Amino acid sequence: MQNSAIGVTAYDWVPPFAQGQVRDLRVRWALEEAGLAYRPIILEQGSQRSAENIARQPFGQVPAMEIDGQTMFESGAIVWRIAEASDGLLPSDRHRRDLALSWVFASLNTVEPPIAALVDLDFFARDADAAAKLRAGAIESVSKRLGQLQAALGDRDGLLGDFSVADLMMTAVLRIPRHTDILQNFPALDAYVARHTARPAFRKALADQLAPFRDNAARYERAA
Amino acid sequence: MQNSAIGVTAYDWVPPFAQGQVRDLRVRWALEEAGLAYRPIILEQGSQRSAENIARQPFGQVPAMEIDGQTMFESGAIVWRIAEASDGLLPSDRHRRDLALSWVFASLNTVEPPIAALVDLDFFARDADAAAKLRAGAIESVSKRLGQLQAALGDRDGLLGDFSVADLMMTAVLRIPRHTDILQNFPALDAYVARHTARPAFRKALADQLAPFRDNAARYERAA
Ligand SMILES: N[C@@H](CCC(=O)N[C@@H](CS)C(=O)NCC(=O)O)C(=O)O
Ligand SMILES: N[C@@H](CCC(=O)N[C@@H](CS)C(=O)NCC(=O)O)C(=O)O
Repeated sequence: MQNSAIGVTAYDWVPPFAQGQVRDLRVRWALEEAGLAYRPIILEQGSQRSAENIARQPFGQVPAMEIDGQTMFESGAIVWRIAEASDGLLPSDRHRRDLALSWVFASLNTVEPPIAALVDLDFFARDADAAAKLRAGAIESVSKRLGQLQAALGDRDGLLGDFSVADLMMTAVLRIPRHTDILQNFPALDAYVARHTARPAFRKALADQLAPFRDNAARYERAA
Repeated sequence: MQNSAIGVTAYDWVPPFAQGQVRDLRVRWALEEAGLAYRPIILEQGSQRSAENIARQPFGQVPAMEIDGQTMFESGAIVWRIAEASDGLLPSDRHRRDLALSWVFASLNTVEPPIAALVDLDFFARDADAAAKLRAGAIESVSKRLGQLQAALGDRDGLLGDFSVADLMMTAVLRIPRHTDILQNFPALDAYVARHTARPAFRKALADQLAPFRDNAARYERAA
């Protein structure tokens, strides 16, 4: 394991609101689904902005993946690469493979942006009053996309029928607004997230992301 | 041409601020670079929300691509699919191909989100006062990403050296905040966009997107 050809960057600790949300989680999940061993490359909080990390992740973030001595970055790209290398995450026919790619991009470029805007207002806005005034509009934008997504899912288990990389990525994105109850307005999506996060590969990936946070909590909380 | 195996959805008209920005442009551009003929599938404004369009694009948007009688959606997925089918848009070695995919996702999931948030504040916020209060923070978020991107580009022509799909997508995203002068603060990125939008394939794609808008302007402006 320690000598695995695949390495994934992750943090030794993040603040509570981000625990279970850091984007190495979806990469770990994909690797678990694919049955590929990997070694976590644990970055000390703050060192993501070091020259060493920027050389592998130009925006000073996680995750990056080392594979066969080479590096790639962006969770979307990494997860797609893993799916291509796996048996269980991608449909085998060309058309459904193209649709899986469509849904991975839809997760990250159509469903996530309004969710990210809501998170920004709720956690990072410098003017709480102004943020409050824009919040109803942000909720409406998220709800519009979730309504369309729920309609597209219909009564299927996964976006392509059986579980695929499309559901892995969409589930990862739908977990982002965990600080709200917005998903409860879309019962089929709420069940979709519950169904997919119950998968053993997800549970394992989540436990592995959280483990160092627990070990390092005392040190970081003392420093704060 | 009319019988080409590839079809791309686009609009018959959009309001002036969106002209030259609609996301079929990057798909047309990729097809021109790849030397692949296609037929535009022109949707009347409003019909993007029809059941027929939602069947091919679950969020009621453009673009979608019909290829070999099948449909795919999301400009990121479509452009990547075209790059895979082309000679000139993707490096041939595996490692640089993985990096190209990393940059396509970085364009859409790291550089675009803060830009989209700024566009939202500038064009779509319901409370102009609140939007004005959050604008400085939004500009700072965009600037942070552009600074990191400019550092990553260094003095190369393209993100992978020679022009590739990574530059096509990044250029498309960097064109989004055209209503501001923010790019001028990043001279290497400003030159990067100028260099890539001077490519004949881009000029052709842009002219082809704009042509129907001109033809239909009178009708839509009368209706407004
Ligand atoms: N689009 C990127 C986003 C990566 C990202 O947002 N990473 C966050 C953690 S989830 C990060 O490392 N931020 C820098 C920091 O926390 O200092 C991806 O999907 O890989
Ligand atoms: N993430 C999608 C976004 C597509 C998108 O935003 N399409 C816009 C035009 S650029 C649209 O059709 N919006 C619906 C409308 O204008 O009614 C993609 O990249 O394909």
